[in-house]
Amino acid sequence: MIKYTNMKKFKIIKKSKKSKARNGIVTTGHGKVKTPVFMPCATLGAVKTLAPYEVESLGFEIILANTYHLFLRPGEKFIKKLGGLHDFIKWNKPILTDSGGYQVFSLGAGNRHGDKKSAVKITPDGVEFKSHLDGSKHFFTPEKVIDIQLDLGSDILMIIDICTEYPANKKRARETMEITHKWAERSIKYWKRLKRRRPHLARKLLFGIIQGSVYKDLREESARFITSLGFDGIAVGGVSVGEGKRHMYNVMRWAAPHLPKDKPRYLMGVGEPEDLIRGVSLGYDMFDCVLPTRLARHGVVWIKQGKGFKKLDLRKSSSRSNNNVIQKGCGCYACSNGFTRAYLSHLVREKEVLGIRLLTLHNLFLINELIQSIDNGDVF
Amino acid sequence: MIKYTNMKKFKIIKKSKKSKARNGIVTTGHGKVKTPVFMPCATLGAVKTLAPYEVESLGFEIILANTYHLFLRPGEKFIKKLGGLHDFIKWNKPILTDSGGYQVFSLGAGNRHGDKKSAVKITPDGVEFKSHLDGSKHFFTPEKVIDIQLDLGSDILMIIDICTEYPANKKRARETMEITHKWAERSIKYWKRLKRRRPHLARKLLFGIIQGSVYKDLREESARFITSLGFDGIAVGGVSVGEGKRHMYNVMRWAAPHLPKDKPRYLMGVGEPEDLIRGVSLGYDMFDCVLPTRLARHGVVWIKQGKGFKKLDLRKSSSRSNNNVIQKGCGCYACSNGFTRAYLSHLVREKEVLGIRLLTLHNLFLINELIQSIDNGDVF
Repeated sequence: MIKYTNMKKFKIIKKSKKSKARNGIVTTGHGKVKTPVFMPCATLGAVKTLAPYEVESLGFEIILANTYHLFLRPGEKFIKKLGGLHDFIKWNKPILTDSGGYQVFSLGAGNRHGDKKSAVKITPDGVEFKSHLDGSKHFFTPEKVIDIQLDLGSDILMIIDICTEYPANKKRARETMEITHKWAERSIKYWKRLKRRRPHLARKLLFGIIQGSVYKDLREESARFITSLGFDGIAVGGVSVGEGKRHMYNVMRWAAPHLPKDKPRYLMGVGEPEDLIRGVSLGYDMFDCVLPTRLARHGVVWIKQGKGFKKLDLRKSSSRSNNNVIQKGCGCYACSNGFTRAYLSHLVREKEVLGIRLLTLHNLFLINELIQSIDNGDVF
Repeated sequence: MIKYTNMKKFKIIKKSKKSKARNGIVTTGHGKVKTPVFMPCATLGAVKTLAPYEVESLGFEIILANTYHLFLRPGEKFIKKLGGLHDFIKWNKPILTDSGGYQVFSLGAGNRHGDKKSAVKITPDGVEFKSHLDGSKHFFTPEKVIDIQLDLGSDILMIIDICTEYPANKKRARETMEITHKWAERSIKYWKRLKRRRPHLARKLLFGIIQGSVYKDLREESARFITSLGFDGIAVGGVSVGEGKRHMYNVMRWAAPHLPKDKPRYLMGVGEPEDLIRGVSLGYDMFDCVLPTRLARHGVVWIKQGKGFKKLDLRKSSSRSNNNVIQKGCGCYACSNGFTRAYLSHLVREKEVLGIRLLTLHNLFLINELIQSIDNGDVF
């Protein structure tokens, strides 16, 4: 029998000499994940439009599922009863679940159900919010979101945090950060208690999340504090909150030096191809973003241009009669089988699902190829 | 070089002793098609939600595309310029195109654009209609719809007909049938003239269509008349117009004895699994229907029950917590990979595209399996 407690959850294989980039391996109860890694979003238990075999054959080793959404429908108890999320969605590799915190503050604000004031109430104990689906009231605590993620059967669990709204003055940013910190302490305490009673939980990883809005000293303080609590990995939250990419790049840069070297570092909600390169070069190991699937739904694909990337909107008239593939030499299903921009443009404009699928396959292929090739690039 | 004119376009391989069923092979410029055959609908150039490799691996040898839709968007001239429909949609096997007649009378009636009276005007020369997309006026003649289908690059072309509205009194049914007959004469005349000038058109097949509403004598008369014109195959149109299945079964039965024995017989817009069995046993060879994909979009699948079939609505509460696959022993991707009704129900209710895809794969797999297995069934 495996001695769970001796399981090495993160191992660094190689370090760059040019940058802070590193290659590593995260070990979970559902297998290993090579880092740097990008996690496609399976918000409701499916990477939008794709079957599990497609996600796997694109080369992805881990996906992200949303606690908030699955808690509301079909419910974590329901999924547990049916055998857990892996079996429910037929994905046998690792799953990371977020804590629902971000969605509580973005979707659960209650405005959709006629409330003028925000329906999110933060108390020292947790957060009350209204479902964006039916307006029903719910209460999340640090302990409760861990329980939900355990019911789902997650491999990497995230603690609850307050994703501070933007703009927030420093006082507000500090207040919400401090609540996040208190919740982090409660989370790790609860997690340790659970692990004592249920040793097999040692196969799972619990990640802390740092906040601090757009303030350098708060971000540094948060990074140091959360790191001190002994989580299995550290995430940087609230990264893409703010204006444009300036804030985002600042936050990435400020937090990085204060994160533990021997643990996986996860940059939440990032990002575009160039952001991934920047993130890896700063020493981040894990990334997730809805963009590859969301852009595809809107008819947009990434293409390489020179050393960079650009977006191509296939609904635009310039694509309509273009008889070339999205990108010559690309190995994705759409490009390697000769589907032309003209056909894809036709499908997207006609709202044919196949169009969204082919664009999703292209975008995710490009992202995975980028992550795979980063070792040979400028960041290493 | 192949002598096109000597190409045998339909060959009967086996005849049933129990019924009128037969096995045959239709030969087209894009390969052979074993009959009986079901043709999935690729209305806008894609079998809804599926990539071409999926349609092929389900076992389908021919698909149907809609002339009316492709004429309106992106346009047959556009598709011709880009290399024809096969290359545009990356489907290298045979394609049958309908004539657009049915859509002109169902979608092109103009009611969606604020006109009180029908915007479809039948003249001796052809039919004027309004686009259901933007209300623009168009005119189809027997010659024009052949030209459009040739521009698309169709392998099996259909002539234009009037799909008589239901209910229609006998006078109206006869009038519209007689126009259909005149148009059929013009179609075959035009086709012969074209073939004299362009010998390679001999690789293509042109099918006539019989009408006659719900009147036995008209159906018989139409079957005899259209048969006498020497088309490569004969289709029965307007089959599912009318009330329930009584009319449909009548029309199938009335027309069958008057159709040519040595040519493919195509029952248009049919149908459900039990209708296919009935159709084959009456001697029909070709079928198409939007139901496998349309039902899937609405969360409905077919399952076998005893010797028959029934529909299962996965949105219903009885499916929500059912941890079984759609049908045990089914070889479709969804069933053979263990996707449960509960998960499929969740996906369908959440409008996740993967749900529609998995249900589409199931329904089309079942239909193809049925067609493949008919030889061993009761009808042979």
